[in-house]
Amino acid sequence: MKRRILLNCDMGESFGAWVMGNDEHAMPLVDQANLACGFHAGDPLIMQRSVALAVRHGVAVGAHPAYPDLVGFGRRHLACSPDEVKAQVLYQLGALDAFCRAAGTQVDYVKPHGALYNDLVRDDALLEAVLEACAAYRPGLPLMVLARVDNGRERRLATAAGVPLWFEAFADRAYQADGQLVARHQAGAVHHDPQRIVEQAVAIACGEPFADCDGQPLRLTADSLCVHGDNAESLAVLERLRAALDSA
Amino acid sequence: MKRRILLNCDMGESFGAWVMGNDEHAMPLVDQANLACGFHAGDPLIMQRSVALAVRHGVAVGAHPAYPDLVGFGRRHLACSPDEVKAQVLYQLGALDAFCRAAGTQVDYVKPHGALYNDLVRDDALLEAVLEACAAYRPGLPLMVLARVDNGRERRLATAAGVPLWFEAFADRAYQADGQLVARHQAGAVHHDPQRIVEQAVAIACGEPFADCDGQPLRLTADSLCVHGDNAESLAVLERLRAALDSA
Amino acid sequence: MKRRILLNCDMGESFGAWVMGNDEHAMPLVDQANLACGFHAGDPLIMQRSVALAVRHGVAVGAHPAYPDLVGFGRRHLACSPDEVKAQVLYQLGALDAFCRAAGTQVDYVKPHGALYNDLVRDDALLEAVLEACAAYRPGLPLMVLARVDNGRERRLATAAGVPLWFEAFADRAYQADGQLVARHQAGAVHHDPQRIVEQAVAIACGEPFADCDGQPLRLTADSLCVHGDNAESLAVLERLRAALDSA
Amino acid sequence: MKRRILLNCDMGESFGAWVMGNDEHAMPLVDQANLACGFHAGDPLIMQRSVALAVRHGVAVGAHPAYPDLVGFGRRHLACSPDEVKAQVLYQLGALDAFCRAAGTQVDYVKPHGALYNDLVRDDALLEAVLEACAAYRPGLPLMVLARVDNGRERRLATAAGVPLWFEAFADRAYQADGQLVARHQAGAVHHDPQRIVEQAVAIACGEPFADCDGQPLRLTADSLCVHGDNAESLAVLERLRAALDSA
Repeated sequence: MKRRILLNCDMGESFGAWVMGNDEHAMPLVDQANLACGFHAGDPLIMQRSVALAVRHGVAVGAHPAYPDLVGFGRRHLACSPDEVKAQVLYQLGALDAFCRAAGTQVDYVKPHGALYNDLVRDDALLEAVLEACAAYRPGLPLMVLARVDNGRERRLATAAGVPLWFEAFADRAYQADGQLVARHQAGAVHHDPQRIVEQAVAIACGEPFADCDGQPLRLTADSLCVHGDNAESLAVLERLRAALDSA
Repeated sequence: MKRRILLNCDMGESFGAWVMGNDEHAMPLVDQANLACGFHAGDPLIMQRSVALAVRHGVAVGAHPAYPDLVGFGRRHLACSPDEVKAQVLYQLGALDAFCRAAGTQVDYVKPHGALYNDLVRDDALLEAVLEACAAYRPGLPLMVLARVDNGRERRLATAAGVPLWFEAFADRAYQADGQLVARHQAGAVHHDPQRIVEQAVAIACGEPFADCDGQPLRLTADSLCVHGDNAESLAVLERLRAALDSA
Repeated sequence: MKRRILLNCDMGESFGAWVMGNDEHAMPLVDQANLACGFHAGDPLIMQRSVALAVRHGVAVGAHPAYPDLVGFGRRHLACSPDEVKAQVLYQLGALDAFCRAAGTQVDYVKPHGALYNDLVRDDALLEAVLEACAAYRPGLPLMVLARVDNGRERRLATAAGVPLWFEAFADRAYQADGQLVARHQAGAVHHDPQRIVEQAVAIACGEPFADCDGQPLRLTADSLCVHGDNAESLAVLERLRAALDSA
Repeated sequence: MKRRILLNCDMGESFGAWVMGNDEHAMPLVDQANLACGFHAGDPLIMQRSVALAVRHGVAVGAHPAYPDLVGFGRRHLACSPDEVKAQVLYQLGALDAFCRAAGTQVDYVKPHGALYNDLVRDDALLEAVLEACAAYRPGLPLMVLARVDNGRERRLATAAGVPLWFEAFADRAYQADGQLVARHQAGAVHHDPQRIVEQAVAIACGEPFADCDGQPLRLTADSLCVHGDNAESLAVLERLRAALDSA
């Protein structure tokens, strides 16, 4: 099962004296660590330590580039041109890869963060810019995007750029019929019942349908599940998820 | 002669809407471009364009990492630990190298900027940190340091770290007897007479002695001369220098 | 005439080692200096010096707050909440006023910069946030906004907030019939002919109609004209403008 | 007793999405809140909320300006000129005061943070710069400095600048015979025994001697005690301190 679906988690989100997350406890439970690269979180020392922690646990390192917005944690849309976004992604990707090289590994994939991640769903030029950055940095470097019912647009643009795609789904989020996430501010957008989260995860992992926000069956094809481990509650869910997927 | 001594120049020092330097005119005249990496100057787009400009003119790209201090342009000492400095250098080096990779080349050497450059002359732990960053990033990646009469300390630490050294000298600065630069705020610290600058450059290039600040003969062994090209006056001197060295 | 319409200019837009504008030459020619407050340009020392320069020439100081975006010079829309914008404006306003107090004066008005200025035209909640910041900082502190044919919306919200409005117009920009500026990327958006700029300025100053982008007569009521003085060409236009308005 | 010695605490040290401290719980227990002003911590929204919290509990607001160093939390020495420091302090002071004005109060005093605080002990020109900033901002605005056995130097410079001084002492730090704090990295520099902390506080409050790091009696005259409330342990000590001083 571990081969069939992976667990990825946003990590390395501390900054200077400020601590965020619980990376020490979550790292052993995941397969892929999306590490902040300094634009929304993560200073050089924290990036170095996060890479070391990932390597110690055999976890693949993903670059987690963002708009340059420390105060807003990369969650606020910033009207950047495609040229700016391509350069921002290259910059952050290379910076993180330096720590990977120094630790004897390399960046395994790219998963944009926050507002940039969301903007890619709507904006072809931005998606092309990020794909160009991946292709320019290293042939074959994959980009991780949101798994929906129809990812034809992403597949088409990625094929044109020569970039492999990895699709990620969410076990703790409610979905619309088209595989779009229900917006966070809407009621029921986030699942809190551990049992439900585990069931949705196992369904996605096994290619089985699960209930969308209207109770209709939804089937998503995903390579990786995005999980959280920043507090005691989410760590407990993560442990159950890991166990359920390993034994599925 | 071009093989015997190279010309290096700090470039890519614009930031966002602010323009600094005259890189378009200076680039064709130099051999090595020390490019700012975002900590004291140079945003991602400017780094991308600066690398492209260097590649277009066959100029080698050097990483020019600095303390994180945009307001102070990296010229103010910041009390960072060796661990912090090592991580800062790796971060900036990798970020710049991403643009080099995308342009089909790679960072050729590392030359620290401003206060960090100056601090390396005095602080063994910081110099070791920068050397470790170079070695960890890519075996054989050279570090450029100040040529003095006795560089035994730098040679010893660099040998221990397995890092090649390149030595740079200045054609437009006055030297003390030990090969240390006369501090900028002292009278006569900077030569303004083009003839004198060219003579000092040719002397260094040919391994001949030139006059130190007391008029005594000083001989320095250097691989590269640091030049400037940010205004009409310095560009004119640079053109004379280039011509003099090419015909020497 | 100087009493009937004022000239305002964006100034204090240098940052650290980077110089922008030509404030020394432009300051004696204007009535109001919109000074950057550190979020898009202007560090503390530059703010201090800009205030001193304004005071020396009897020029009123306006706060020129922006989204926090140094790399983008505050020209990129950043999706901030009204609460964030109110706090950002208060922060920048207070920071600039500190230098005014130290120089024996005070911030005379607030004129938002760049993307924030543009967003206020469309977004009521953001405009209310900026108005609240003005009112909370000092009763009677005016906000400067774009003069259009119908400023009813701005007048209504400003009245509710108890904030006086100042309207600014542009002598060197083409207008649509409703008094909206023609977008910069469209052909003919910016006037370059000094004669035309002076004529449009005098028309606005005298309450006379001038030609909009379709050649139809347009009448705008404005308290201040936004001018530029960052290069030799714009300084020459500014001198003609100043002379024409003083003698009108 | 509350009149005889006050309790001050560093607060408002969160930044964007990162939370630091436990201001909600600590605020009711202190008299003076030293609020970060954006250079080492504290973004505009957090400053606004911190001021509101202080006002709600009748706590005086102090400006807590720092060197511009978010990554280093203002704890790293940065080689700024006195002119730069004066401008940095004015900037931060005004920014914080804007939120105070909006909340119907004003900044009550200035207490520099971290490396800047420490540098003032050794560097007359920097101390003069900070004193000038206080005097220029508002006549009578006090500066808080470290209480030592001999504060003659601070008194002399402050008198020359016309700035009142407030002296702060530490209940949980070991002192040298001259009233200098034992450096944090030395053994025994920080007291962890709540009983000892309370005893040292009461001694200082009552003008009685307490044991320095060599066990010799030391007497310090202080207006305020610096306390901490960022975790459960320090909050418990703070509650005991508050009770002991109120009943002393």
